[in-house]
Amino acid sequence: MSDDDAVRRYYVDGELVPADEASIPVTDRGFLYGDAAFETLRAYGGDVFHWEPHADRLAETCDVLGMDHGLSDDDLRARIDETLAANGLEDAYVRLSITRGSQPGRLTPAEDVDPRVVVIVEPLSRGGRNSDPVWDGPATVQTVRTRRIPDRAIPARAKTHNYLNGILARVELRVTGADEALMLDSDGYVTEGATSNLFFVADNALCTPSLDGPVLPGITRRVVLDLARQEGIPIRERRFTPDDVRDADEAFLTNSTWELRPIETVDGISVGDGPVTKLLSRLYDDYVERQHYEESRDDSVASE
Amino acid sequence: MSDDDAVRRYYVDGELVPADEASIPVTDRGFLYGDAAFETLRAYGGDVFHWEPHADRLAETCDVLGMDHGLSDDDLRARIDETLAANGLEDAYVRLSITRGSQPGRLTPAEDVDPRVVVIVEPLSRGGRNSDPVWDGPATVQTVRTRRIPDRAIPARAKTHNYLNGILARVELRVTGADEALMLDSDGYVTEGATSNLFFVADNALCTPSLDGPVLPGITRRVVLDLARQEGIPIRERRFTPDDVRDADEAFLTNSTWELRPIETVDGISVGDGPVTKLLSRLYDDYVERQHYEESRDDSVASE
Repeated sequence: MSDDDAVRRYYVDGELVPADEASIPVTDRGFLYGDAAFETLRAYGGDVFHWEPHADRLAETCDVLGMDHGLSDDDLRARIDETLAANGLEDAYVRLSITRGSQPGRLTPAEDVDPRVVVIVEPLSRGGRNSDPVWDGPATVQTVRTRRIPDRAIPARAKTHNYLNGILARVELRVTGADEALMLDSDGYVTEGATSNLFFVADNALCTPSLDGPVLPGITRRVVLDLARQEGIPIRERRFTPDDVRDADEAFLTNSTWELRPIETVDGISVGDGPVTKLLSRLYDDYVERQHYEESRDDSVASE
Repeated sequence: MSDDDAVRRYYVDGELVPADEASIPVTDRGFLYGDAAFETLRAYGGDVFHWEPHADRLAETCDVLGMDHGLSDDDLRARIDETLAANGLEDAYVRLSITRGSQPGRLTPAEDVDPRVVVIVEPLSRGGRNSDPVWDGPATVQTVRTRRIPDRAIPARAKTHNYLNGILARVELRVTGADEALMLDSDGYVTEGATSNLFFVADNALCTPSLDGPVLPGITRRVVLDLARQEGIPIRERRFTPDDVRDADEAFLTNSTWELRPIETVDGISVGDGPVTKLLSRLYDDYVERQHYEESRDDSVASE
């Protein structure tokens, strides 16, 4: 995606190292148990988008894990900025992980943590107005048999390296080749995709599963709800059935890298985008443009 | 635990490397997502205990994960044996992991896998008769709020690097300092410990939660049930409540490293071991002795 792929550097445990040498010990709890917190972010024009809510969610994840890593939000942000700068990246995908490090003994984590921080970056296309989406066309979505892990087993608000639930859902898509799995909770209500939040439009209202179910509180989800609210679009946050989605007038998925991705079909039933999806996508692009390109980087906007 | 800790070597992706240099790329799916299968085994007298059931369960895990790694059981066994030999270890803890390796793109795993195999070994005390248990005294057990992940979210028969469910359970024990968490299923029935299967004795019958709940089919669990059956001890495999365990006459936990570990208390209520636990522990030691020490290594048995 970029000429400087050959010199890509990742941040690992205090050092910027060539990507193909970036590694962690096999004794790290992030490897042994997936015992790590992470955030996926996007950088636009050199700055990560909505750092504070990402930092807050990361803190919430670490709180759920009982992991007191002792690193400040500013410290973590500085490591991301350092990694972006070392790679000369302004528009990028960023994955920040904090593991509980290596600890003697077995499963029970020690309260005293020597954390390992890993920052992986990759170039992405520019965001904002006139940006190219990172996805290949609208998503085909399929309801899967794999159910979302209930909050009482692992709280959905924790974004961790335990991602097999979503992977098992995605493996089910091998037969149909669908892009995203629509996962239901234990009671059969719609929750989210394997890596995305779900929105749909019904009776001119913007609908999305509420966070009292096992649903990740997506940062993009929150921005979209705020934009819709400002625009006076009616919002329904509650439990929904798969039929509610299949019968929708429009539907789309959100996550930090995809931003808004329209849904073409759900279980083979045509849904597609429409005026609300198009408006919210436009508002989102405008928002990114204002936040990241207009003020400080007018020259680069002009040159796009 | 051993004089040769300084030269411990782990097997990583085709090579035996010094333990403190053993690492995997940060792009490995085993790190990013906990997308890996593993087995914990014990070696007694130079041979891994019950390799075939472990290999079968590993294959089952990989099947659940949709991971066709293409490595034969014999190949995997050879890597374990090579690692034990390189460390001069006859009595050891062994952790064998297979990851889906690094793959381009995001969450959806490719069907074509270039797996990474990791073997971690550590010295353990001799098993069999007159062996020292690896645990420090009988276990204090506490029922936790964290519920076992339902099979419909991640099948319990898959032993994977997604271990946060058990870790969250163990984190709950920080307040009381209990040794093991007793985890319930979504309906409140007893399942297992964070890293162990549960047995208890009531009305002179050996009781253990059945595998139709979210319970790992432990190899030690199976051996204990077989030994009990041969001894004519009545067996009850079904669903049980926490009160069934608290009211038990005896109780113990099993896993490959602990073997049988008596339970001292459940939620502060004294349970303890008794004749059935003692008999089965003795039978288990005899079984290990016969399988691993008597025939091929009579000299080392005599020298203990």
